[in-house]
Amino acid sequence: MPEDRSQKTEVRGQKTAVISHQSSVISQQPAEETKDYGLKKDRGQMSEVREAVDYGPWTVDYGLRRGVCEMAAQIIKGKEVAQQIRLELKEEVAKLKEKGIVPGLVTILVGEDPASQVYVKSKVKSCGEIGIESFNHVLPADTSEEELLNLIEKLNKDPKVNGILTQLPLPKHIDTNKVLLAIDPAKDVDGFHPINIGKLNAKKKRKEIDQEGIFLPCTPNGVIELLKRTGVKLRGAETVIVGRSNIVGKPVAMLLLAEDATVTICHTGTKDLGEVTRRADVLIAAVGRPKMITADMVKEGVVVIDVGVNRTPEGLCGDVDFEAVKEKAKAITPVPGGVGPMTITMLLVNTVKSAKVAAGLI
Amino acid sequence: MPEDRSQKTEVRGQKTAVISHQSSVISQQPAEETKDYGLKKDRGQMSEVREAVDYGPWTVDYGLRRGVCEMAAQIIKGKEVAQQIRLELKEEVAKLKEKGIVPGLVTILVGEDPASQVYVKSKVKSCGEIGIESFNHVLPADTSEEELLNLIEKLNKDPKVNGILTQLPLPKHIDTNKVLLAIDPAKDVDGFHPINIGKLNAKKKRKEIDQEGIFLPCTPNGVIELLKRTGVKLRGAETVIVGRSNIVGKPVAMLLLAEDATVTICHTGTKDLGEVTRRADVLIAAVGRPKMITADMVKEGVVVIDVGVNRTPEGLCGDVDFEAVKEKAKAITPVPGGVGPMTITMLLVNTVKSAKVAAGLI
Repeated sequence: MPEDRSQKTEVRGQKTAVISHQSSVISQQPAEETKDYGLKKDRGQMSEVREAVDYGPWTVDYGLRRGVCEMAAQIIKGKEVAQQIRLELKEEVAKLKEKGIVPGLVTILVGEDPASQVYVKSKVKSCGEIGIESFNHVLPADTSEEELLNLIEKLNKDPKVNGILTQLPLPKHIDTNKVLLAIDPAKDVDGFHPINIGKLNAKKKRKEIDQEGIFLPCTPNGVIELLKRTGVKLRGAETVIVGRSNIVGKPVAMLLLAEDATVTICHTGTKDLGEVTRRADVLIAAVGRPKMITADMVKEGVVVIDVGVNRTPEGLCGDVDFEAVKEKAKAITPVPGGVGPMTITMLLVNTVKSAKVAAGLI
Repeated sequence: MPEDRSQKTEVRGQKTAVISHQSSVISQQPAEETKDYGLKKDRGQMSEVREAVDYGPWTVDYGLRRGVCEMAAQIIKGKEVAQQIRLELKEEVAKLKEKGIVPGLVTILVGEDPASQVYVKSKVKSCGEIGIESFNHVLPADTSEEELLNLIEKLNKDPKVNGILTQLPLPKHIDTNKVLLAIDPAKDVDGFHPINIGKLNAKKKRKEIDQEGIFLPCTPNGVIELLKRTGVKLRGAETVIVGRSNIVGKPVAMLLLAEDATVTICHTGTKDLGEVTRRADVLIAAVGRPKMITADMVKEGVVVIDVGVNRTPEGLCGDVDFEAVKEKAKAITPVPGGVGPMTITMLLVNTVKSAKVAAGLI
């Protein structure tokens, strides 16, 4: 069944991706219904596709044998990419265990925010699955700032702890900034300590970043990993980021620069947003406004990464009008199931990295 | 004399700038030779000028009374802007002295590099002029890394020292990165400690940056100050930075974002550089390649800041082909005499800021 096949190739990414992307000429349809253009027309179509695909190392299945041509956007399935990374991590953790190294992650939860409880639970579960030891500290909502800082100081010194994660938001009587700064930068697996952000900024190439064992913020790193594993070539690509937040926009910009992409950052102050986003070969939306990126704001063949997660009366949706934009995009992430699953995965990656740095392996 | 007048207005900047900028229609000529278009033609010309000037709060002198129309680019004279800032600083330092606060800057020079000696001498002289106390440590070229680190540790603790500046390059047997990291971030008046870079990145608006007493890297801060004092409106402007260095490109990008500009960063990996630079309302060149930005790479009415300083057989020149680009630009910095004089000035600004933070005034 063609539909099944297409799914599989999306998972494997780069090497086998069927060109089920790019085109507004033919709208996305179930594989069964794709039009038969005949051999000659197929070839004509394909020269266009080849051109659009030029900047990515996509392996194109011209569909000549089948005589059909699937042209809808490739759906970038973050969940499956994340699963693949976790499998790789699991193997790595197993090898570390042979050397007597067991990565350890501490989560700290203050109070009983239900959403935070869900997140922490999910992190603990993910750790267990790949062999990271996790310790969950649950503190009452009236814990003082001093008590929390004392705990962090103790954890900073504990050699069994490679990563410390304070679940936000903290109760209002605690200075979040002070708490985050108290975490040893060498255990800052969230990657938000100014010294880690500063180090990231000071590196020119991704290779240098990886060699030095800097912790990258999880969502931005997830975005880059998703692009790379989907086979999108970033060097020389025009990348446009909508949103200049500290947790996504700015670090994504730095990581894209380290991949030799040309980078533009837009925001609420940008005069004509559509004019800028239409230039993008790769568009990253990270604003938090439901469906604000509409089809007229992208060019044909764009790759779209939607970081937004917005709760609307109709359910979860991203910053991109997915249904409309996917008709023009070469590849696009859905919400949910796109960037989201990458975030915890990159936290696990950082924790394993931290254990390796502590053991002198990086 | 019209030429004199134009000079004066450039110094005062924003409030009185005569529109002696923008146009390729009329090439720059001495004021004495400017063409008389007659009143009617003047008005036609001016509607174009008004449009080009739209995004900046320039005060336009339509020249109607004089019946002439000066259209060449405004030359942004960094030396005079720097002088103005130093005058303001001098007043501030005098007021601090009344409170018993004397800002102190230490320069450390290891070895006898002649260029470094010149730079240090110039810094010491500048400090003296505005009332900053300066201490210059000159160490022999064979000083060990440990000795240097010990000196820095001592200076970190010395309350009379508000800023520590290690003149680069250091001899090869000393790890520069280690030395720079050893400087207390609260005395890092160069603004290159990762924690200062990280803090800069974590702020959304310029106001927040200023309120927190973060030290901004001197050249990037000088670029922004030059733009602001020239009256260039940055909010919503399309700004393009050529060069992604840690000392200029990246921090300038962060500072421009904090001014609500749309920011694009280009570099050697950018496919069609001219295509990108032609979009710029404000173009910052910081590459280190003589005259690489040619007239065909800019649009009419651009504001150009040239950070490059290149030694060529014909003398010093910037990254911008000044003579050709000034015919299209609204305003442009020369090299030398543009950004250069701002750098030491912003070092003085940081030192005074550090003294104020130490005294609890910020």
